Amino acid sequence: MSAPALLMDYYALTMANSYFLEGRAQEWAVFDYYFRRVPDRGGYAIFAGLEQLLDFVQNWRFSEADIAYLEKDGRFHPDFLAYLRDFRFTGEIYAFAEGSVVFPNEPIVCVRAPLIECQLLETFLLLTLNHQSLIATKAARLCRQAKGKPVFEFGARRAHGANAAIDGARAAYIGGVSATANIEASQRYGIPLVGTMAHAYVQSFDNEYEAFLAYAKSYPEHCVLLVDTYDTLGKGIPNAIRIHKEVLAPQGYALKGIRIDSGDLAYLSEKARHMLDEAGIPEAKIIVSNALDECLIRDLIQQDAQIDAFGVGENLMTARSEPVFGGVYKIVSLERDGMMQVKIKISENMSKTTVPAFKQVYRFFDKQGKAIADLLTLREEDLTDCQSYELFDPEYPWKKKIVRDFHLKPMLNVVYQNGQILGEQPSLEAIRQNTQQALKSLWREVKRLENPHGYYVDLSKALWGLRQSLIQKMRG
Amino acid sequence: MSAPALLMDYYALTMANSYFLEGRAQEWAVFDYYFRRVPDRGGYAIFAGLEQLLDFVQNWRFSEADIAYLEKDGRFHPDFLAYLRDFRFTGEIYAFAEGSVVFPNEPIVCVRAPLIECQLLETFLLLTLNHQSLIATKAARLCRQAKGKPVFEFGARRAHGANAAIDGARAAYIGGVSATANIEASQRYGIPLVGTMAHAYVQSFDNEYEAFLAYAKSYPEHCVLLVDTYDTLGKGIPNAIRIHKEVLAPQGYALKGIRIDSGDLAYLSEKARHMLDEAGIPEAKIIVSNALDECLIRDLIQQDAQIDAFGVGENLMTARSEPVFGGVYKIVSLERDGMMQVKIKISENMSKTTVPAFKQVYRFFDKQGKAIADLLTLREEDLTDCQSYELFDPEYPWKKKIVRDFHLKPMLNVVYQNGQILGEQPSLEAIRQNTQQALKSLWREVKRLENPHGYYVDLSKALWGLRQSLIQKMRG
Repeated sequence: MSAPALLMDYYALTMANSYFLEGRAQEWAVFDYYFRRVPDRGGYAIFAGLEQLLDFVQNWRFSEADIAYLEKDGRFHPDFLAYLRDFRFTGEIYAFAEGSVVFPNEPIVCVRAPLIECQLLETFLLLTLNHQSLIATKAARLCRQAKGKPVFEFGARRAHGANAAIDGARAAYIGGVSATANIEASQRYGIPLVGTMAHAYVQSFDNEYEAFLAYAKSYPEHCVLLVDTYDTLGKGIPNAIRIHKEVLAPQGYALKGIRIDSGDLAYLSEKARHMLDEAGIPEAKIIVSNALDECLIRDLIQQDAQIDAFGVGENLMTARSEPVFGGVYKIVSLERDGMMQVKIKISENMSKTTVPAFKQVYRFFDKQGKAIADLLTLREEDLTDCQSYELFDPEYPWKKKIVRDFHLKPMLNVVYQNGQILGEQPSLEAIRQNTQQALKSLWREVKRLENPHGYYVDLSKALWGLRQSLIQKMRG
Repeated sequence: MSAPALLMDYYALTMANSYFLEGRAQEWAVFDYYFRRVPDRGGYAIFAGLEQLLDFVQNWRFSEADIAYLEKDGRFHPDFLAYLRDFRFTGEIYAFAEGSVVFPNEPIVCVRAPLIECQLLETFLLLTLNHQSLIATKAARLCRQAKGKPVFEFGARRAHGANAAIDGARAAYIGGVSATANIEASQRYGIPLVGTMAHAYVQSFDNEYEAFLAYAKSYPEHCVLLVDTYDTLGKGIPNAIRIHKEVLAPQGYALKGIRIDSGDLAYLSEKARHMLDEAGIPEAKIIVSNALDECLIRDLIQQDAQIDAFGVGENLMTARSEPVFGGVYKIVSLERDGMMQVKIKISENMSKTTVPAFKQVYRFFDKQGKAIADLLTLREEDLTDCQSYELFDPEYPWKKKIVRDFHLKPMLNVVYQNGQILGEQPSLEAIRQNTQQALKSLWREVKRLENPHGYYVDLSKALWGLRQSLIQKMRG
């Protein structure tokens, strides 16, 4: 399942061939990956997919079949095809740690490589990071509404193909879900597995009780029963209780839980809790599913619904309410004739005008460890010994604030160089914990479901000045 | 990139193990795949993904690593694991032809197999068919608004992972797009390729003219220039015209076209057409992109925008406005103790109550070749010599209509049997033509963008009667 080398837009190759023919194969460039707004009007995003990007880059080779295919196309010069035949990615990648909380308009990944390689990487970089960041962000949003109760990922059947299901489960786990129903995702990434039974199982027996009985015989230790096939309160829960009393308890086991997949979940869960408690099984969990999203979970929690875990499907795995993470990849610097040229793309819309130059991002934390702002600087600016700093709004530069007593963290660190992934890749658990830590460092107002406070992403004076001068030069 | 054997929900395996332990490994069942509503409130959907489903089924094996992984899990009986080690899909698959126009509440695929195999196939079947049918349906919707002008698929960078990009391009081609920018999709499936250049290419040169010049040198025969990097009307188009006059025309070539990726596309395209015509290049095409969807395309066409082709990205590849094709997979029949039992799942909501039994779907065409209704029948009902037929609404059975002079087509045909895909798989071109033919057979009212006429999906008297008697039996 590792991605094919030619998973790229055709224009990447036609441009690369043209650069090559122009004698520009050794010109280096810097491209930034960033996004402009958080999906669902959220206040923050979770960065995911870096591991898959680095694996791809490290193993990226064009096969003889690929070369033959391109040869047939007719647009590519034999020398360029020979170059592709021996292709290795020789550039450097700088990135936020995977699982970081990230904000609009800051570079999250920065590729410094020969222009050709930068361009060839564009499509795969974008699709991988956009996909996983989309799902991790959605998962974090969902899980926050569950107030610490576990959320399970049940969405493979509605995912956009195999990768969407498998890597989507990975991203959802980074974002905070507790387990997945997807076995392959669990096998590949070590995500905890969860699952019960389908309505078809219950229907395949002569009656519900017999179905539950067979399941209890197969899984006395892990007996979670789906109770809504026929009549949740009238049949399903009584049958589950009967199984507990007549089958499980006599063997020293207990009913682990029930799942409700239809109906009014607030009402049914309250009734179910009462019935299970009355039957002496207060430890049996109530799991619900059925078109859940962050708003429904919030409403259920507000109603004090007696729910122990939420199974979420399509609304998580397709990020249904906004299924696009609009990450873009823009050139910010280019070496020509031995000189670095910074690059800018100007738009009528200031927020679409790029921020030029090879950059660093510093995160400012206050004494309590809360993140207060991210600052984009020129790569060569060194803030490490800085005691106080004047932050200002890049659009309204008269809005200023001097900060002191902060702790600074450089966010863009080199992760790939000289054909190698640097250091050990963090485990998925470590990435997930990184996300949990990063979320703790945010003020509650930034994490609000609706109308979150906008986190500050500012430019250093030097970078702001450079950008302004380029804008003036190009407009003049 | 073929999908892993364990790409399935955990409950499929726990249920399968339980069936196995209950001695039910040889009980056969029938499951229907169908959907309940068309995304975007459309009037029809396009069925896609069958080829990938059949390939998966034919090559479906559990590796030793898979077995070892499941062994470690601890819930599976050694005999069941031995069964998985030798697993082959032994069932039968009945399906509509890929590329068919399909409607809510009719079985599109029908799996007849040992219950265990039916259950193990659920997740992969759903995710593959749901994904590709989603994108094919969206593509058909988009292309219809383009009134015969080509639509190009540009969405890989926002797709949900590699499969979403590659198989999504395939589905989009079935649905009617003319070409893709995705090289791997083109290599794998033979889809025509399309591509121009990115803004980064233009920016990487000292000025726009030099960038165009380099591109024209590399691709004199295929010179399509992106004209909006700096100033579309003031610089981009004049530079493109200059390239035509000074570089291409003297060599006997012509400018093939321009692409506009920002701004007011109606206004800019009109101005661009005028400028190109004035310059004596009426054959140069105008391609536009930038967050297009079916509504924007319709509006541009209504404004007589001078556009020759539309590039569509995320709104197609994620089906952004509704990214879920809600196909479901339900048991309809089960062989127990040598007897076939029909199965029904009742819901408060009549449209969520399943239609029991192993079925056939007949499509009625009138003398003009227009599709007038689909009829679900028991599999054993034979309508082939039928001269007149009384159709009735299954929810309001007093609404009747006698049809005559029709042509009947059985839609659910066996495509997989005895471990083999039957017959030759149609080429992608043939599938795409099937879609075009099927769309022609629909009344315009069914294809309307908004408030389409609801196409009739009816039940035969025998099937309707069976369903009613089961509902009464279960309620009584």
